[in-house]
Amino acid sequence: MKGLAMLKIGEIGWIEKERPTCGSRDAIVKPLALAPCTSDVHTVWEGAIGDRHNLILGHEALGIVDEVGNEVRDFKPGDRVIVPAITPDWETEAAQRGFPSQTGGPLGGWKFSNSKDGVFGEFFHVNLADHNLAHLPDGMSLEAGVMLPDMLSTGFLGAENAKIGIGSTVAVLGIGPVGLCGVAGARLRGAGRIFAVGTRPAAVRVAKEYGATDIISYKDGNTVEQILEATGGAGVDAVIIAGGGPDILVDALNMARPGSVVSNVNYFGSGMGESDILPIPRVGWGFGMADKSIVTGLCPGGRVRMERLADMVMYGRMDPSRMATHVFRGFDRLEEALLLMKEKPRDLIKPVVLLAS
Amino acid sequence: MKGLAMLKIGEIGWIEKERPTCGSRDAIVKPLALAPCTSDVHTVWEGAIGDRHNLILGHEALGIVDEVGNEVRDFKPGDRVIVPAITPDWETEAAQRGFPSQTGGPLGGWKFSNSKDGVFGEFFHVNLADHNLAHLPDGMSLEAGVMLPDMLSTGFLGAENAKIGIGSTVAVLGIGPVGLCGVAGARLRGAGRIFAVGTRPAAVRVAKEYGATDIISYKDGNTVEQILEATGGAGVDAVIIAGGGPDILVDALNMARPGSVVSNVNYFGSGMGESDILPIPRVGWGFGMADKSIVTGLCPGGRVRMERLADMVMYGRMDPSRMATHVFRGFDRLEEALLLMKEKPRDLIKPVVLLAS
Amino acid sequence: MKGLAMLKIGEIGWIEKERPTCGSRDAIVKPLALAPCTSDVHTVWEGAIGDRHNLILGHEALGIVDEVGNEVRDFKPGDRVIVPAITPDWETEAAQRGFPSQTGGPLGGWKFSNSKDGVFGEFFHVNLADHNLAHLPDGMSLEAGVMLPDMLSTGFLGAENAKIGIGSTVAVLGIGPVGLCGVAGARLRGAGRIFAVGTRPAAVRVAKEYGATDIISYKDGNTVEQILEATGGAGVDAVIIAGGGPDILVDALNMARPGSVVSNVNYFGSGMGESDILPIPRVGWGFGMADKSIVTGLCPGGRVRMERLADMVMYGRMDPSRMATHVFRGFDRLEEALLLMKEKPRDLIKPVVLLAS
Amino acid sequence: MKGLAMLKIGEIGWIEKERPTCGSRDAIVKPLALAPCTSDVHTVWEGAIGDRHNLILGHEALGIVDEVGNEVRDFKPGDRVIVPAITPDWETEAAQRGFPSQTGGPLGGWKFSNSKDGVFGEFFHVNLADHNLAHLPDGMSLEAGVMLPDMLSTGFLGAENAKIGIGSTVAVLGIGPVGLCGVAGARLRGAGRIFAVGTRPAAVRVAKEYGATDIISYKDGNTVEQILEATGGAGVDAVIIAGGGPDILVDALNMARPGSVVSNVNYFGSGMGESDILPIPRVGWGFGMADKSIVTGLCPGGRVRMERLADMVMYGRMDPSRMATHVFRGFDRLEEALLLMKEKPRDLIKPVVLLAS
Repeated sequence: MKGLAMLKIGEIGWIEKERPTCGSRDAIVKPLALAPCTSDVHTVWEGAIGDRHNLILGHEALGIVDEVGNEVRDFKPGDRVIVPAITPDWETEAAQRGFPSQTGGPLGGWKFSNSKDGVFGEFFHVNLADHNLAHLPDGMSLEAGVMLPDMLSTGFLGAENAKIGIGSTVAVLGIGPVGLCGVAGARLRGAGRIFAVGTRPAAVRVAKEYGATDIISYKDGNTVEQILEATGGAGVDAVIIAGGGPDILVDALNMARPGSVVSNVNYFGSGMGESDILPIPRVGWGFGMADKSIVTGLCPGGRVRMERLADMVMYGRMDPSRMATHVFRGFDRLEEALLLMKEKPRDLIKPVVLLAS
Repeated sequence: MKGLAMLKIGEIGWIEKERPTCGSRDAIVKPLALAPCTSDVHTVWEGAIGDRHNLILGHEALGIVDEVGNEVRDFKPGDRVIVPAITPDWETEAAQRGFPSQTGGPLGGWKFSNSKDGVFGEFFHVNLADHNLAHLPDGMSLEAGVMLPDMLSTGFLGAENAKIGIGSTVAVLGIGPVGLCGVAGARLRGAGRIFAVGTRPAAVRVAKEYGATDIISYKDGNTVEQILEATGGAGVDAVIIAGGGPDILVDALNMARPGSVVSNVNYFGSGMGESDILPIPRVGWGFGMADKSIVTGLCPGGRVRMERLADMVMYGRMDPSRMATHVFRGFDRLEEALLLMKEKPRDLIKPVVLLAS
Repeated sequence: MKGLAMLKIGEIGWIEKERPTCGSRDAIVKPLALAPCTSDVHTVWEGAIGDRHNLILGHEALGIVDEVGNEVRDFKPGDRVIVPAITPDWETEAAQRGFPSQTGGPLGGWKFSNSKDGVFGEFFHVNLADHNLAHLPDGMSLEAGVMLPDMLSTGFLGAENAKIGIGSTVAVLGIGPVGLCGVAGARLRGAGRIFAVGTRPAAVRVAKEYGATDIISYKDGNTVEQILEATGGAGVDAVIIAGGGPDILVDALNMARPGSVVSNVNYFGSGMGESDILPIPRVGWGFGMADKSIVTGLCPGGRVRMERLADMVMYGRMDPSRMATHVFRGFDRLEEALLLMKEKPRDLIKPVVLLAS
Repeated sequence: MKGLAMLKIGEIGWIEKERPTCGSRDAIVKPLALAPCTSDVHTVWEGAIGDRHNLILGHEALGIVDEVGNEVRDFKPGDRVIVPAITPDWETEAAQRGFPSQTGGPLGGWKFSNSKDGVFGEFFHVNLADHNLAHLPDGMSLEAGVMLPDMLSTGFLGAENAKIGIGSTVAVLGIGPVGLCGVAGARLRGAGRIFAVGTRPAAVRVAKEYGATDIISYKDGNTVEQILEATGGAGVDAVIIAGGGPDILVDALNMARPGSVVSNVNYFGSGMGESDILPIPRVGWGFGMADKSIVTGLCPGGRVRMERLADMVMYGRMDPSRMATHVFRGFDRLEEALLLMKEKPRDLIKPVVLLAS
């Protein structure tokens, strides 16, 4: 079968591989809709997860079940499915502790294009099909559905971890697709005022639709100062980090009030200095005593999460398709879509590739 | 000064009283908008808080500050204010434990028309003005604002206590104004599907606007069975009780799935049997072992709560004025409004009385 | 193989059955230590889970692995293991929601002597061996170890669910072995004063060793009044229900202060009245508005839980062997031990049966 | 009156000041027992809170009430009291949000020797006496009691914030008096294994008494590696930081497993580099995605907290007097005690000064 792979750091290409084999509780799935992610760009061009050879890329997909193992009960060939980016081993130690995305080690629930081939192949393998796949609801568009596996799940997590209450004031740093879902998630958890920090016009438009009340641009001055001024010096109850460089925690903590949460869903692909560190501001953090928490997490996966996100779309709580600014048709357009993600033209939020079903 | 009072159980009337006096941290406030509450009806006609004589009624008000004590810093005569129904003694033991509405004993934060005269007078007294009053934002309509002191605060609490997550399925029992705010609150906390149980057409219309996806009527059969059927037998993640008789917990627990929360914001004015009990279903409760929690609370009060609710309205998260179905003008229309609340015609959600300012 | 079974409601006896077969991820285990539970008594003599025929009883065991499936990696024949009373299907929907003991329906994680044969056989079957069994630490006595599968896990859950903080005042209703573990659990979560309600001398002695500061007996008058008086009328921050009749929630709520938790780990085998209800007190519950929560749960199972409980014993945080008041040796003494549990002589806390290994 | 003051950065001395005046809700208190704190050392010799002139030092005290304002109801002259280090303005905004130690700005609940004179005077002022003072229980030794205002409250907070569950594995970095209370607090919240990192023999002895199961010394090699090795590579569920330099977060995160909490109660008086930052390790933090939270807080104050801590001592849950290694008698020994704190001889845990009552 054919797949779009990382050949080595800095290089991608189409390769031929064996169709994956299906274990007794697994499924083999054909893609129906695919989306490249910034993480794919980090993986290939920044070597974020180390050097890999001929690793098929991608972790955002809708698909059609092609084969299931003999213990699978709820799915059969032909079923249209949502495939979460994170597919935990639900029985294991970290899941029993309440952290399924960390099964098998840090970030271990992330398997696609990390510990096995990703979804950018003609076929791909899904572990624990009954417990990681979800049925794609009738009537959900592919453009909307393909945002669930990672974008919604990650962006919403940013809001969920931020302990937002009804009427909280929230800042979202970065309005790529994850940040936009952070904005939507903040609104869905009850935020009142929402500052969205970013400049790209397409994203600004969607940020407002998703609930942002104030758009903050670095072009108008220091973003921390703008937010402090807008809040009368108080700062915000919660900050969701969905972008930024290695020193973004400095900004986040400097705009967070005493008694607040900084919730990170940003992948830090590089640090500062020889010891590879990320800085936090001593005074802005209140000398370690101002009740400012820093919380992290990896995109929740699994069937129940996907079903709940699907409900959010089907019951009209959010329209993810607004983020699909660039739609390609055909498996062979995948490379083009991925390169677009790398280039990030100003009118891009998220490229999507739809396949003939 | 004049006030609309409970003369004794079953009887109301206008009385003359001394204008209340103002302590050093207190305020005396003139009403700007008033709303009668079902609790007023319970108090007068059901004797819910025992017999009282010449007690001025009412706990839902917007007002204009008439006088402040010499230690008050943030408010001055002429300021337009939101007056929470619950005005805690914030320094005291229960507040330090995290339960400000219970300061001074069960439900002790509820003072208006309970432990002192209510807001249905030409003037009324507010304790701890700096910490219990909030400024009424410019541009907020009186019809919207007068819903904050109790309706939004109580209905939202029902949702907040229900541990709703993004994509949770929720049932709201009762769609009076508190139940409607429970619906809105469930949506604001991230609910996907929301069942609203009720029949009154005006309320059904607003329930849909506020986020209900399914309307359940007892006229179509047993409401528990309808909800179980609609969820494929699973039941719901959370139930908000905002109405019903003494046995409503039976319904609530019977529709709640294992691992769920029943969140009560209903005032139980009467019980069943000689020992004055409320029944819960042994099997529906999972024999006491099915991880079904029952949570209660009294409307949160105080300045911060009111400011956060005001933000929700000003940032367009919810429009409470949709509930003001009957608007009266003039202090002397108050009795009429209260009697309307007692009669509950089918097109009523909430009566509101606006005063010349 | 031989097993001690429920023949029908009200009757037990030894029966012959086929040795269970082992699935690919399962284990077959031989008992090393067994303990009868009050639940076994309820099952047989009260028909608590309905009529069953020739169902092997028991759910509290230590064992020796006899056989493992070909996918099992961490256990092999000969390993000495702790077998949790609750053995969830960790991949499934309820576990993904955070309620593993409810997998497959209410209380569905409870399989032994409920949905399959229990541990009172010469061999018994354990699902998901790698994820439900735990290694028995060297140096842990069998008398201590056999308390982990249910007594510690359930009693501690009572305390964990009760939101006890450092310095909380707690009441534990019932000082059978689960209640004693509730006392120990309350101390382990930081309780200050702990009221233990019970009278049996052997249990009273252990309650004090486990952290009870006050023993309350119904012989000295109404227990609610005694606790209210001892707390200056305030009541307690948390109540753990580990015994009592169908109306025990009335007592619990009447002694709970506003802003408190009633945490139930009692199995309610019967209710009151024709509609099979459990009563809660309208006034004692604060009319449904006094911030008094009622929380339930079923004993947590699985490997991680057992390992953590084992750590508590090995690091000297608690000595469960203090509860093993009656120790029998030999599989054939099992019936005697079970009948002792039924009779409950005054010097009994828990009977234990040790097998030759 | 006389007081021991910071004259300027680097210099202390006895000064004369006016006896403070008492507001209507306040108290004036005479010291009964005093303890110098590492914070006093930071304040004077490191200029941690900036330059101050003739500021009376100290925030750890037991006292005798000398005068109360006319609104104070629960205390009268002659009462023996516990004085919390943190005395919040309980009505204010941050307290209403749930963060009383942050009232009036970051760390604003800390008033003694910060925003007003401290307790090292012949008399000192306490705001909101009814709500910040607690009665000293009969029978509590002064050596034990004087540990409550800061040491127990802060150290326990470290454990409370760390989300320790029954059987959690915890590391405590630093075993000064706050770290020792972190150890005790970890045990009181249910920790199984507790690593205490430190070397001073007197502290090591008390650490073991308070519940440490493993003592880790930098003299035996890298402490992170020692803890990882001891846990089979897994790391710990929680880290309590109670000491260390500006880069201690690096160690903490490197020993914390995915799905864990780093709970800081260390005052960071200085940072690294020109931008005054504190470093966290990019990889050890799991690239910002390994569910490792960093939580902070300032010592909880107020009456309820002190009463709960007093209960812990009176009910025998912990003996704080074990930390009073050096006891001085007489107000004039205070300077000597403070200088001892500065020098930190190896047999010191905490110096205490007892006054004739």
